[in-house]
This record gives sequence, C-alpha cells and structure tokens, in this order.
Amino acid sequence: MIKPIAATAAAILLSASPTVAQTIYPIDRAEILAGAHFDFKVEFPDRVDPAKLKVTVNGAEYSAAFGQSGSFVDREDGKDQSALILRNVALPKPGSVTVEVSDGTRSRSVVWTVYDTGPRKAKNVILFIGDGLSPAHRVAARILSKGIAEGKSRGKLAIDDMPHMALVATAGSDSIITDSANAASAYATGHKTAVNAMGVYADRTASAFDDPSVETITSVAKRRLGLAIGIVTNTEVEDATPAAMVAHTRRRAAYDEIVKQYFAAKPDVLMGGGSANFMPKAAAGSKRKDDIDYIARFRDAGYQVAMTKSEMDASAAKSDTRQLLGLFATGNMDGALDRKFLKGGGVKKFPDQPDLTEQVQAALNVLSRNEAGFFLMVESGMIDKYAHLLDMERAVYDTIMLDNAVRQTRDWARGRGDDTLILVLADHNHPNSLVGTINDDMSTTPNVPLRERVGTYDKAGFPNYPAPDAEGYPSRVDVSRRLAIFSASLPDHYETFRPKLDNPNEPSVKGDAPGTFKINEKYKDVAGAVLRLGNLPAMMGASVHSGEDVILTATGPGSDRVHGSMDNTDVFRIMADALGLAAAGK
Amino acid sequence: MIKPIAATAAAILLSASPTVAQTIYPIDRAEILAGAHFDFKVEFPDRVDPAKLKVTVNGAEYSAAFGQSGSFVDREDGKDQSALILRNVALPKPGSVTVEVSDGTRSRSVVWTVYDTGPRKAKNVILFIGDGLSPAHRVAARILSKGIAEGKSRGKLAIDDMPHMALVATAGSDSIITDSANAASAYATGHKTAVNAMGVYADRTASAFDDPSVETITSVAKRRLGLAIGIVTNTEVEDATPAAMVAHTRRRAAYDEIVKQYFAAKPDVLMGGGSANFMPKAAAGSKRKDDIDYIARFRDAGYQVAMTKSEMDASAAKSDTRQLLGLFATGNMDGALDRKFLKGGGVKKFPDQPDLTEQVQAALNVLSRNEAGFFLMVESGMIDKYAHLLDMERAVYDTIMLDNAVRQTRDWARGRGDDTLILVLADHNHPNSLVGTINDDMSTTPNVPLRERVGTYDKAGFPNYPAPDAEGYPSRVDVSRRLAIFSASLPDHYETFRPKLDNPNEPSVKGDAPGTFKINEKYKDVAGAVLRLGNLPAMMGASVHSGEDVILTATGPGSDRVHGSMDNTDVFRIMADALGLAAAGK
Repeated sequence: MIKPIAATAAAILLSASPTVAQTIYPIDRAEILAGAHFDFKVEFPDRVDPAKLKVTVNGAEYSAAFGQSGSFVDREDGKDQSALILRNVALPKPGSVTVEVSDGTRSRSVVWTVYDTGPRKAKNVILFIGDGLSPAHRVAARILSKGIAEGKSRGKLAIDDMPHMALVATAGSDSIITDSANAASAYATGHKTAVNAMGVYADRTASAFDDPSVETITSVAKRRLGLAIGIVTNTEVEDATPAAMVAHTRRRAAYDEIVKQYFAAKPDVLMGGGSANFMPKAAAGSKRKDDIDYIARFRDAGYQVAMTKSEMDASAAKSDTRQLLGLFATGNMDGALDRKFLKGGGVKKFPDQPDLTEQVQAALNVLSRNEAGFFLMVESGMIDKYAHLLDMERAVYDTIMLDNAVRQTRDWARGRGDDTLILVLADHNHPNSLVGTINDDMSTTPNVPLRERVGTYDKAGFPNYPAPDAEGYPSRVDVSRRLAIFSASLPDHYETFRPKLDNPNEPSVKGDAPGTFKINEKYKDVAGAVLRLGNLPAMMGASVHSGEDVILTATGPGSDRVHGSMDNTDVFRIMADALGLAAAGK
Repeated sequence: MIKPIAATAAAILLSASPTVAQTIYPIDRAEILAGAHFDFKVEFPDRVDPAKLKVTVNGAEYSAAFGQSGSFVDREDGKDQSALILRNVALPKPGSVTVEVSDGTRSRSVVWTVYDTGPRKAKNVILFIGDGLSPAHRVAARILSKGIAEGKSRGKLAIDDMPHMALVATAGSDSIITDSANAASAYATGHKTAVNAMGVYADRTASAFDDPSVETITSVAKRRLGLAIGIVTNTEVEDATPAAMVAHTRRRAAYDEIVKQYFAAKPDVLMGGGSANFMPKAAAGSKRKDDIDYIARFRDAGYQVAMTKSEMDASAAKSDTRQLLGLFATGNMDGALDRKFLKGGGVKKFPDQPDLTEQVQAALNVLSRNEAGFFLMVESGMIDKYAHLLDMERAVYDTIMLDNAVRQTRDWARGRGDDTLILVLADHNHPNSLVGTINDDMSTTPNVPLRERVGTYDKAGFPNYPAPDAEGYPSRVDVSRRLAIFSASLPDHYETFRPKLDNPNEPSVKGDAPGTFKINEKYKDVAGAVLRLGNLPAMMGASVHSGEDVILTATGPGSDRVHGSMDNTDVFRIMADALGLAAAGK
C-alpha cells in the first residue's frame, strides 16, 4: 500500500527477499524519546520457525537490549502468519538503533533514532489545537475580529502574534491525507500512524485494541514528573483529538473503550461534550453498550463533576478541587456563533454550556494547583466539524474563540513570568479558501444568479460585518457583503451563498442504503440556490481534509525550537524537550 | 468603496464633515522609508478656494515641510473637483507624521510613520517570488521532488529549509483580494495600493499615468547605493510582478508604457518572455502600437541582448557584460513540464528557452560584477498562470523549479560568506488544495465515474510518480495514482481528473461577446470527463486568487526580522533595513 516515491535502493539492499518482507513496529525512521515505553512487534508474512528467528538491536540479541524475550505467536489471528511481540519496552540511551530481523531466509532492517532531551525549561506545556484550522479561517477571523482598513489589519490575532513559527507536515504512515486521530497521535506520541489510529501502530490483526502501543506525552509527563494532565475540548471528549492524548486504539470510533481508557489514565481535568458514552445504557441519551456509569466512577474516584458552566465554575473555584470532569452535552458542544448569537444547534437543549475560554480558565485554575506543573491540551474542535459541513461562518467564529483562549492563556502565562510553553497549531487543513465576498447589493436586478454576486479581486472589496464586540465577534453574519469561503472538495449539494441562520449547514443527508449520502433537499428552494455536483465519490457526504502543511506558532520556554519545516512528530519532541522528559528519567 | 470593519470613531472625529472627506495620498497609516521619494496629493470632493486651503505636516505649513508648494488644480479632469499635487517629495526624519488638510469647511487627517533603517547588513538582496505559490503547490512539490515514505518526507525543499519564517497578509488598499500588481508593488515600494496598480496610489483621474507615485526599492537602491538591479522572470517581463519592480502606473496592462519605463529605469539585468512589446509594430509577432524598436534601443544603450538560452549563456560569460536584456519568447515562457518533458505550449516555437535556474545563474554572474552589490527579483511566474487554468501538474513543476533556483542561489551565497539576504515568498494564494489522490486502479469496473476514483483519507495513500531526476522532476505525471489538487473557485468547465499531456489546460475559451467566456468543449469527450458548473460569475473564465496569508521564508543578513505575522508592505521594510537604505541617505 505504501509506495515510496524516491529511490529505495538502500531499503531494497537491506532486504534479502525483495518480495514480501517482515513488518517491524516501530517503523523505519521512527524517532523515539529515550525511556519512553513502546511495544515492539515483528509481523512475518507467513509461518516461521522460532528456532531460526534472529532479531538483533544494534547487533545485540533483542532480549538483552529490551530486557525481555517477548511472545512468539505461531499463527496470528489463526492464519499462517507468525509474529513476535514485546510489550512495554524502552530504550534508555540516545543514538541510532538498527533493528535486524531474520527468519533464516528473509531479513528486514529498520533504523530508529532514540533521542535525549536537555534539562527542563518549562514548568507547564499548553498545546492548543484548532482542529482543521486552515489559512482561510485564520485570515477571516482576523478580518472579523480585528477589522481591516485600506487593506491593513487593525490588530493582530494572538495566534499570529507569537515569536516563533514553523510549517508542520501532516501526512500519516498510510496516506498523504491525515485524519484527526493520527494527526493528534503524532503530537501526543511522536510517532506517525494510520488514519483512525491513536497511540498505536495499526497492525494487521482484527482486534482494534491489541496494536503495538507507543507512550503518550500525558503518560510520560505524569509518570516521570508528576505533572497534572488536562484535556479540554468543545467536541465530544471521546473524539479523536482529545482521546489521542491518552488512548491507544486503532479505531477512533470505539467511544466506550476510549472512556474506559480515560478512566484508567485519569487525566486531572477532562472537559468537553460527549456525556452519552459516560452514562449507562439505560440512562436517557446514553450511547453506551453496557451498564457502567462512568460519571459515577469518576465522582467516586474523587473528581468534581460538572454538567453545566455554572457547575464548572463552582467546582473550579473550590480551592481543593484537583480533578474535574466536565461534560456539557451528550454529543458535541455548540460553537460560538450558535451559543452567543443564533441559538441554533444544541443550544436549546444544553443552554448552560461554557465558552472554550471559560473552560480553559477553569482548567488553568485546577491544574495550576499541582506544584509539579501540568500538561494541557485545548482543542477548538468544532472548526473542523463546521468546515466539513461547508459552514464557514461557524468555523470562523470558533477560530476567533480559539484566538481568545490563546490570548487569555498568554496573559495568564505572562502573569507567572512566562514559565509555560504555549503551542498553537492545526492538526490538518481543510481545502477552504477565501475567494472574495458575496455582495447582495452588487446587482439591482432581482433575478441575477447568486454566483454573479461573488466579488473577486477589486470587486471583492471589504465586507460590511458590524464592528466586533469585546470578544471579537460581529453580532451578525447575514450582512449584505460577506466573506466568500468555498471548499475545493465538495459532495453534491445545494449552494445557497448565504450563512445558515437556523442550524449548522447540512449539505447532505444519509442515503437510503447504509453508509451512503444524498443531497439535502432542505436548501433546494432557498432563493438563488444552485445545485453543485461534487468532485468526491458520491458516498462522501461532506468536504474532506487536505494535505497541506499546517502553521505552528509558539511562545515560552522551549519555543525557540519552532522554526522552518517540521514534521508533525516533531511537535512531540519540542514538548518533550521543553519538559526535559528524557533527562528526567536518568 | 472601502468599508473599515472595526469601529472608526477616531477617524470620524478627525473629520469635520463625516459625509465626503478629502482623500489624501499616501493613505492613512502609510509607512514611509525616510528619504524615499513620493508624490503627495489631496483630492477634494468638490471645487475649493485655494486661499482657504490649509495643509499642515506635523503642524507646519506643508510647503515648508516638503520644500515645495505644489500645484493646485482647480477643476481636475475638467470636473468640479480640486486637487493639490506635489511630485517627488521626501521626509528625511523618522517619526510619526500627521497631515491635516482643511478647505475652510471640511477637514481630514492622516497619520504616517516615517522609519529609519539601521546600518547596512547585506551586500545583496534577492527576492524570490513564486507567483500564486500556494501551500498545496508546496506540499506537492515536496512529495514529487523529495519523495515520501510512511508519511515522512525524504528531504526538505530549499524554500522550506530556512532559519526564518513569517505569515504575510496580502490584502490591497481596495480589496481583501490582491492581484499580482498591487502585491508586487507592496514588496517593491512598501505601500499598499489597488488591484491593477503598481508604484502608485490609484487616484480618481482618468489617466493611468498621473497617479501619485511612490519610489521602488530598485530606484532607492540604485540612487543611494549604486546597486545593480536585476529582474528575472519566466512570464512576460511586462507582466505585473516584474514590472512592479520599476514601473509606476495604475494599469498593469499598459505593456508599451511599461517597456518605456523599463528603458528609462535601465535595470542592469532584465530577463523573461514578452519580446512582443519590445518590437516595432511592423515586426512579426509584435504587439506594440508604435514603431519604436526597444530591443535596438537597449542594445544601443550598451546592453547585451539574448533571445535564446545559448545567447544568454554567451552574453553572461563575457567578463565585460554588465547589462543584459534576455527575451526568450514573444509571450510567456514555458514551464518546466513543457520544456523538459511534454514539449507542449510554446516549446516548438521557442525551443531554446533557458530554465529559471539558468536565468538566475546568468543574472548572478552579471550582477555580481557590480562592486556595490545588487538587488535581484526572481519570479517563478507561471505557477500562477497554470493555477488559474486548473493545470496543477504544471504549477507544481514550476514550484520545483523555483526550489531549484533558491537552492542554487543559497549555495552561491554560502560560497561568498552569506553576504546576501534571500527572501522567498508568494504574492498571493490560489484556492488550491491537495485533497488526496486520483487512483485509476481503484476500480476494475470500467464505467465507474472518475470522481469515484478520488481517494481521500486512507484511500489517498501515496502517489506512484517515478523517482525524481537529478533536478527533482519525475519523468511522468500521467501515472495511475496521482495527486488530486482541486480549486475552490471554478469557472464552468469539464473536469477530466487527468493531467493535460498536450498543452496547458484551457478550462474555458473566449465567448462570443467581448470579455465573456464559455466552456471549452475540447475536453467534453475525454473518457470520464464531468461537467462542473462553477461558483464564480459566468464571465470569469478561470480560477481566481484567494486571500489567505502567504508564507515568507528567509536567510542571510537581516533575515532575523522575518517572524510572526507581517503585512506585505513589511517585506519592503525588511529589504530596506538589510541594505540600510535610510541610513545611507544621511
């Protein structure tokens, strides 16, 4: 499946049989934090004789190098395919590590880099992820929240106004296009993996819970330094980005299992939506398949539990609150545009949801009670959901919300003497672009098709949103000259050229056959709506991710390593270095 | 036309009449290099009495501040509108400058910032512009020219591998969407202006050649430091990006005038396509409207003239060549994919065109003969043209060509002890995104629509282009699994999901009425072609520019000022600072 493009002469020479070679996890060119735990696995393409097996690590017998001999599986998954598995090994010394595997006939070799870290520079690390945050969202958020006059912005976004910047490549081990699971996993573990996987390499077995594991930064930081761990999102907490901070599975949709893993890992602060999979199946709104009440379990384990903003504020304010579970909706929380202005989405059902800035403030209050410091991941996660749905206004408002959360956190960090590394980045792009404005005043003829009102170049001019409020939000999006953000990946849908004022956009709906989609007829009769036939396979119901680099900006101790072109796995390394995670283990 | 979004209370208070105020050029918040020349103009909305006119600069009478009293125009363009114009003024001292204008009734005020520079740090400045270079082109160029294995690039692009990086905002004074004229003008002059304009503020008069001028970096650098000036492109040299380095007009299409201005400015090296407007109208292939032979004029003025790569190499090799005009095609030159592999476009007509890397090498040879140093702008300009035409392969190949030119130049600079500031950036984005791959092998059923073969997420996998040659180009683009780069702005066209192997893509052709476009039927019968109805006004025949920030990377003396979020006008300031342009004038 994986076809290296450049000449692979070196790799071919290393393999005695160029046909079907063994697969080794961690993969070739993996970079491994000294002392971090991982599972080592060799998959043989057929049955092999364990007596003929030779596995060396820098020339030494593997069992000596890893301190254990591992399990040999004669017929993995009941098939004629053997495997060798070692769980929870580590390599304490930095340097290049060559692993060679031979079954007597075939051989395969991979090279890893084990790296050290310097001394600890940062007391805390805060990783902000704008899920699917794309350059078009960024510039639109700047225009709406800062204003622009004669082409010049009237102010800077906090996410822009950072001393260090880099481009981060996002491809996964299986594809040039990543999803939020393997993207967040790269940040959380420093290892690339496949779409849908987090905290593991995706192996060939049927089980989604036995894949070779790699340790997350939350685990290393807690294990070595006693850091408090916080995970804050406005999606379901079981969703890929937050879950990847602790979970190990190659199936991101396994929400019940992810909740179980959360409970085992016990992050000190866990906040977002997604209560449905915390409640026993009998409870109203539950999506669990069993009778376990994880809300009760967390409470019994000493957690304060908040189901509303009011409860969150009260819990966080208590000086002895050290662990806080906040679940503010059964599914995803609502974005800023719905919560603050339009009251669509789930706002009527869950009217007392906190803003991301409020969640972050509560998390900082609780986490900073830990003398040893903390690691906090904050996701503005609905940017991605709205971008998938071609709902550009909602995606931009949640970009402004992310910016507010970052500004507030930078102010907080400054007040403490800048002891905190703050990173802000996306996990992947969306194929969105700001191509101009849509100008309802452009034509006085009523029957001019709406696409004729798309202003490009000089005809785009500047939009006429009202001045932003104190939080940077214009009070209206249905203005007569508004930003035109379109996607390069489209399902079949009706384009209305207008913001959706009732509820988030829904370009397609489920089709009659399972797993299929069809055009949502809801928008067919909107005046001027245009049927647009997409460029994606017909069963794709939404715009998809794109493969461009994402922008990383950073400030605080350790942020000077952020520059140039990086890989998404390097983000883990920068955080590990700022915390001195390898050095701490010596 | 310009609608500031943020509250403009301050601006309104400064204006006695909030209805129609005077327009002042340079505009409010302009940043002006100390000592750089500019025209000062006030446009009154109606006729005013010159006796009642009061114009002050930081409280002093304007004629004292500027050293001249200017021309009062009673009825500009024969209309009831007065104007005050001062040509070629300068402000020698750094600081905030408030200009107040009153006609006795109405008043208006603008504030400029005049800035100094430090001592000269760089002997030379080289500005690389990838016209329309977008993040999708960048990642695709990396995949094709470096290769990728298990998600990890096998190498770095030279344009990525730079110590400093920033995001550059691109909006013009009239619109959130810029074109290549006002974008390049912002780099060349440090002033924002309107679409189609370069080296001037676009005023209200009918003439495209009387607009208030601002000085270009080529002029200041030559005037103050005696720098040699080089302009290298692979588009027509009259096109917006190269022309903006010297020209002053608000009509970028005025090619005859631009050639005249080139001859007046006499850049030491000028290379690209566009010979048509250098030849007298009687000459074959000429597009001039007069009988002037500018090729002869340049030759008579001492220039070596090259019409082919062979002539260019011979001219550049002569040790006494200090001025070189190279015009290698009547129109645009051809991109790397056509020149090196497909032989489409104009290659048959102009078979001996140099590669951009060869043009740059010739330019460096000639320019470095100037002891005082040089300023060189290099444009890979066809990236933009191909992106407009939805010809993604050709745009990506010319991105690789840009990368080669940058690598070669960095090597050259290293060999001289890094005395040269090198900047690489785009002028504006295109709404392109890499959404996956197109996989002809995906289905064995012949009649599956091509859009079903668009692989997204894990189905994208990795493309199977052949290994790149020594220059980083795969020898074929018509492989069975190729990159899927789509645009978010579309004219009506047939999408074939295939690279165009004969000639550059031509999604639309001229319509029957002047200035209109219609679908190009050429691709209608390509197997699997899909009619895609666009989202742009029907008279737009091509994909358009988009308004996201562009990426600036930099190395060499003065590049440490490149970080965070910048405006496109700041690029001028960074170059001016590296050359110490203000300090030099003291």
